[in-house]
This record gives sequence, C-alpha cells and structure tokens, in this order.
Amino acid sequence: MQLFWTPASPFTRKVVVAAKELGLWENIEIAPTTWPLEWGYATVSFTAGLAEANPVARIPTLITDDGVGLGCSTLICQHLNGQVVGGEVIPSGAAQWPMWSLYAVADGLLEAQVAMRAEMLRPAAVRSEDYLQKQRDRIDRCFDHMEGRSEELAVADGALPNLAQITAGIACGYQDWREWLTDFRPGRANLSSWYEGFRLRPAMRASEPKDTPEV
Amino acid sequence: MQLFWTPASPFTRKVVVAAKELGLWENIEIAPTTWPLEWGYATVSFTAGLAEANPVARIPTLITDDGVGLGCSTLICQHLNGQVVGGEVIPSGAAQWPMWSLYAVADGLLEAQVAMRAEMLRPAAVRSEDYLQKQRDRIDRCFDHMEGRSEELAVADGALPNLAQITAGIACGYQDWREWLTDFRPGRANLSSWYEGFRLRPAMRASEPKDTPEV
Repeated sequence: MQLFWTPASPFTRKVVVAAKELGLWENIEIAPTTWPLEWGYATVSFTAGLAEANPVARIPTLITDDGVGLGCSTLICQHLNGQVVGGEVIPSGAAQWPMWSLYAVADGLLEAQVAMRAEMLRPAAVRSEDYLQKQRDRIDRCFDHMEGRSEELAVADGALPNLAQITAGIACGYQDWREWLTDFRPGRANLSSWYEGFRLRPAMRASEPKDTPEV
Repeated sequence: MQLFWTPASPFTRKVVVAAKELGLWENIEIAPTTWPLEWGYATVSFTAGLAEANPVARIPTLITDDGVGLGCSTLICQHLNGQVVGGEVIPSGAAQWPMWSLYAVADGLLEAQVAMRAEMLRPAAVRSEDYLQKQRDRIDRCFDHMEGRSEELAVADGALPNLAQITAGIACGYQDWREWLTDFRPGRANLSSWYEGFRLRPAMRASEPKDTPEV
C-alpha cells in the first residue's frame, strides 16, 4: 500500500494512527506531499502521482495492494480495519453505530479546524471573520458534545482504541497545535483528563503534527 | 428513523436515492430543515433538534431506530444498506473497494459543488475568484476521471445501482441544476449518455433538487 501523506493533516493522522494501532504501518509506503500555502484558496501544483490516484487531489489518499486509489480517510480506515481479524478499530454489528455517531462528530470537528486553516491562508482582503466564527462555533459544539459522551472515549480493557476515540484525540491534538485555536479544556474536565492519557499512546506520540513542506 | 433533510443538498439526495432504491424510504420520517442564506459563511439558527442530534449541525443527519444520531452521508448509506439482505447498494468483499474508489471521487465532486455554492453566498467583498476556480478545476478533474471509468457506471443487470453510481448521477444532476455551473457533457460522451438513462430512474426523478426554504 502507498499513502500520500503530510504531517500537518489531521485526516491523514487518523489513517496513520489507525494503521499503527492495527499493526499495519510497516505495510505502508509513505509518499510525502508538499503543498504551497496557496492550497487554501487556489489550485496548486500537486505532488507527482497524487491527482492521478485521486482527482480530488487531497490527502490522505491510499493506493491499495490491488492498485485501487482511495481518497477518503473514513474509507481508508475501513479498508485497513478489514485486513485485521481480532484487534479491530471498528466494532462489528450494532455496536458500530454509536461509535460512528461519535466519530462523525469528531470528524466534523476536524473539518472545521481545517476550514479555519484554509480561511486564514487567504489574502486578508477576502477573509471572512463570520466564516471563522462559524467554524469556532461548530468546534465548540462538537467539543461540548464529546465532553458529554466522555464515557464512550475510554478505551476498553484489552482492546484497541476505536476510530471515534482516535479521531477525538486527533481533534484535541490539532486544537493544541494551532496557536490560533483556543484551549479546549476549560469547562471540559472529562475530555481534558481523558486526552492527557490518550495522547501518550505510542501511535499518537509518533504522529504529532508538524507543518507541511511547501516545496 | 428520522432524516433531517432539504431538497437542495446533494449529500442528502444521496441518502434519499439509496433509501428509495433499497426499499427503505417508507421507514424514514422526514424532518425538513430551513437554512437562512447566510449558512454559507456564518452561524445561523438551526432547525429544532438538528444540533442536538448532530452538533456539526449539517444535513443529512439520520436518527436511527435505536436513537443514534448519524451525521455523515457515507455512514448513513452504510447503515441503510446493512438493513437489507439481497439487493444492496454496496458490494460485499473485495468488490467494494473499486466501488468506494469511484464513490470518493464523485463525493469529492459534490463537496466542490457545495463549496462553490457557499462561496457564492458570501458578500461579494470577501468572495475569492481563485477559490471558485480551485473548485471548478477539481470538478473538471473528477468529471474527467468519471468519464474514464464510465464502464463502472453501468448498473449491473438485475442489480441495484451501487453507491458510486448513485453519487455520480447526483453530481451530474447538481451540475445541471445550478446555472453557475457549466455543462459537464462536452468531451465526456460516455458519462453524458450514461446519465441520460440513469436520471430517469424513479428514485432520481423523485428527488430532483429544489431550493431550500430560508425560513
């Protein structure tokens, strides 16, 4: 498998953490991508091979062992999970739906964070403070929701973290990384104490965000 | 099940078409939503119950029979598909991955269309022509890709359309609906002739897009 990757993308980090937790990381060849800062508001030059594998031209994009290009982090994680029997990051049967419910909230939070990043890369004249506030409001609602469901964030004894937990942890990590995002901790004691433990998992520590090379 | 819905959203249409094709439409109670036009760039008042069911506050959002809020059209379609044995919209086993590959392209195309819609709702002073062009370029790449994979768009004899086909058809339909989007047909003969048949499916005809009420 080949993964188009950057260390800055929280969606890509989701795939990295899932692959590491599943023990599949060694089976994946990393294709680092570069992104001129204009990516937020203009078509840029893409890293060789990316747009051919996925015309949406976004990361993460996985090329499977069968040569299939998969350009969606949710589907990539499902593909990886299906390669492992015992020790999955997605529960089977009806238990998957509450997990997916929380996952979609954490994933929507990531989208809001990345939407803010893209907005802040725009020239100041076409930047919208209302748009930024819309995303901040969404982020606040999602973190509040996660606080209210913090019991579901605890990793079950002897199990791998599920994809909702992984995505929630990555959302907390992105919020900490970008200096223009506020601290998610005030008023969210359960989420905060959960994250203090979760972020120490080897897969999380090995994938802490860094800025993407521009060239 | 309850579905937060509008007739304008192509992501919601995906759920509607999948539910109709699967024979599940009668099991779903529709909760129509209203959206002030400021939704594209500001936090707006949400239809009652939406933000509680899904703090991302987006449509489609499904509340399952078990009361689980699902705020992602891909996951909602997976949930619906799992309720039907025989006659699915998602192939099982390895055959699902080429389908998901094409699906993710069509879905990324929908995202670009909706991103353009949101951008055009902004006050003109903070609208970015570069951003609009970025989305047009993405749309063109994705339609070209679909043209190149048009053999995969043909619905198999005696089968339901799969989710990639449904999403591709909805992308074509959205492109036709919005007058600020260009005709996808020139240079794409296979996609064009496929869509002429696909759009006549009862589930497609029963879900043609209309503007969302603002109040």
